[in-house]
Amino acid sequence: MSAAVSPLAPKSMPDMPAIEGVAIATAEAGIKYKNRTDLLVMTFAADTQVAGVFTRSKCPSAPVDLCRQNLSQGTARVLVVNSGNANAFTGRKGRETTATTARAAANAASCGEDQVFLASTGVIGEPLDPARFTHLLADLAQSAQADRWLDAGRAIMTTDTYPKYATATVDLAGAAVTINGIAKGAGMIAPDMATMLSFVATDAPIAAPVLQALLSAGVEDTFNAITVDSDTSTSDTLMLFATGAAAKRGAPRITDAADPRLDAFKRALGDLLKNLALQVVRDGEGARKQVQITVQGAESDAAAKRIALSIANSPLVKTAVAGEDANWGRIVMAVGKSGEAADRDKLAISFGPIRVARDGERDPHYSEQATSDYMKNEEIEITVDLGLGAGTATVWTCDLTKEYVAINGDYRS
Amino acid sequence: MSAAVSPLAPKSMPDMPAIEGVAIATAEAGIKYKNRTDLLVMTFAADTQVAGVFTRSKCPSAPVDLCRQNLSQGTARVLVVNSGNANAFTGRKGRETTATTARAAANAASCGEDQVFLASTGVIGEPLDPARFTHLLADLAQSAQADRWLDAGRAIMTTDTYPKYATATVDLAGAAVTINGIAKGAGMIAPDMATMLSFVATDAPIAAPVLQALLSAGVEDTFNAITVDSDTSTSDTLMLFATGAAAKRGAPRITDAADPRLDAFKRALGDLLKNLALQVVRDGEGARKQVQITVQGAESDAAAKRIALSIANSPLVKTAVAGEDANWGRIVMAVGKSGEAADRDKLAISFGPIRVARDGERDPHYSEQATSDYMKNEEIEITVDLGLGAGTATVWTCDLTKEYVAINGDYRS
Repeated sequence: MSAAVSPLAPKSMPDMPAIEGVAIATAEAGIKYKNRTDLLVMTFAADTQVAGVFTRSKCPSAPVDLCRQNLSQGTARVLVVNSGNANAFTGRKGRETTATTARAAANAASCGEDQVFLASTGVIGEPLDPARFTHLLADLAQSAQADRWLDAGRAIMTTDTYPKYATATVDLAGAAVTINGIAKGAGMIAPDMATMLSFVATDAPIAAPVLQALLSAGVEDTFNAITVDSDTSTSDTLMLFATGAAAKRGAPRITDAADPRLDAFKRALGDLLKNLALQVVRDGEGARKQVQITVQGAESDAAAKRIALSIANSPLVKTAVAGEDANWGRIVMAVGKSGEAADRDKLAISFGPIRVARDGERDPHYSEQATSDYMKNEEIEITVDLGLGAGTATVWTCDLTKEYVAINGDYRS
Repeated sequence: MSAAVSPLAPKSMPDMPAIEGVAIATAEAGIKYKNRTDLLVMTFAADTQVAGVFTRSKCPSAPVDLCRQNLSQGTARVLVVNSGNANAFTGRKGRETTATTARAAANAASCGEDQVFLASTGVIGEPLDPARFTHLLADLAQSAQADRWLDAGRAIMTTDTYPKYATATVDLAGAAVTINGIAKGAGMIAPDMATMLSFVATDAPIAAPVLQALLSAGVEDTFNAITVDSDTSTSDTLMLFATGAAAKRGAPRITDAADPRLDAFKRALGDLLKNLALQVVRDGEGARKQVQITVQGAESDAAAKRIALSIANSPLVKTAVAGEDANWGRIVMAVGKSGEAADRDKLAISFGPIRVARDGERDPHYSEQATSDYMKNEEIEITVDLGLGAGTATVWTCDLTKEYVAINGDYRS
């Protein structure tokens, strides 16, 4: 396991302001890790609205099942997250653990069990003993403080090499509202898998159905547009909590997703989700380069996204980027294998500002030296124009290095 | 680039008998490689029947386009294959090259241009100058010999670490007929991509539509059930030629794919295709282990195959195998992400004879030591039982090692 911080880590951490109605506490429960926090409790004011999107895996973890079930009810009072054990593929025992934890958390936060949300990340297939941490929940809920966002980001890390934060303050019909988010990402550890967790909170007074609409729309071009290795976790969880505390400062209660007063909030939320998603990619295992892939001229936006993900998930494209090789032949291959409409003889491909191919052939003006220099950058932009229609999409990934194989394959040898 | 022969290479080469009606010649045309053959000419007796299956890429190479076009006509007199340049993504120039080559080959073999079949493998995006080799075709067609199958296998190699051969002799209604096959596989070289080429010939008198039916059926559980890195070439080509020469020894002409006299031939052809396909996997870049993945209990055979390929293409599963880690958590993940029906709490997973998980939990009888010992084998068998239906499928892949990343990413650094 590499202990070094990713070369793509942010150079500094943002100041994370308090969100009125959110309190945070963390603890060292010793679930798996030693000498670090591995338990996060976040409590929410009464009537806090909640929305969530979860893994599309057909084999989700027990906490994902519980969150999906409680979401229908629309309010949240407490979130409990542990790192070190994912409580996934743990069968009946897994359900018993989430039930026991939910009961303890509800007692700790004096709320209904259906107002509890849980997430777990770490080892899978290993039973998670709730007795390791349920006795801590009451004290944590009691002692939780509003200014602990940096602690929250650290407690949920697994093989992340840095904690991931983002914050924004935005105008909602004349009142300033704040959005804070934390994430943990694409790290894997024996015998685990990647799990992406992200929790976002705001003091804006936004009703749960609107919150859900905003989150579902916001995720499409952000968390659903990133890939490290095409592998989907059993536990991916992104939740958005709105305490509504800004109503006291005059923010209107929003009950319609089409309300034009939401526009600035929508944009800020989208930017914040993209910021967190890119931090996840930039902490991809073994990553040395961030790769942005834009597909234009596809038959539809959906087709463009499938082609972009086909390129982003291709081991041959990702190893070429690691080798600083502007290998457009592999991009043609990935376009071709996507199954979407493409006309070989209309394809144009650029690396950054350099067009290397057009009309299905090498661009005669393309400079090998300039392209080679461009590929030395830490952030690589690949643009593919299919020349067929108006569909566009952008996705992000990282390169595939020997370090990825070492992290995921070496630990037993 | 690794020059060492794959540790999974066959220990010996088969004797490749002559096929009456097939003659072979090879040459050093110097298209890209030096001091090795890179041009193969195979001529066929009059009325040789032909069938083919090709890449599903939406961006196929120019030779693939030509083969597809000529196939409708049903007979073949000459096959020309070059290594060193794939003539893919070469636009108008690519079509001019195949047209010029087809003309020269038709002259050389005294046949119609629509009886010519072409395949190219190597660099892509680089124009292939037909003048490099068209002047050699007449002499090669003239001097071709029946006993040159070993030469044929070598001339089509790119980054393969060994040539790939298979042969079978089988009874067709009382007459012995022979099937020979060669293949080249999953090697990639800057700035290239994997290309799978395979050519199979027989002296059995089988009509083209029957041949096509046999080949299309035979490919499903063989070449279409292998994956090295999920990347699909622009140039994948598998062709089957039947000279009919065995008719002179009493073999009946077969014009109906349902003819029961074909049964032994069908089985032998299937075995031969599987043999060649596994040789391709075993020469996967950086491969140290062959992995067989069998999915049982799926809703349908098609669902089983999609799940099996989801497992076989998962970088996390493949790196775990490289690390000799029986990481069943990653297999659950790959089942879950396939999109096919799965019930977490019914899943059972075995490595070889060792069941590591059942009913959605770790098998209580599972021995870590025995599993760890099993994973040291060169051939790993993974079985997943979904417990839902009767659908089954088996696919093959190799592990994902640092050598794969080195081969595909290091050459520019």
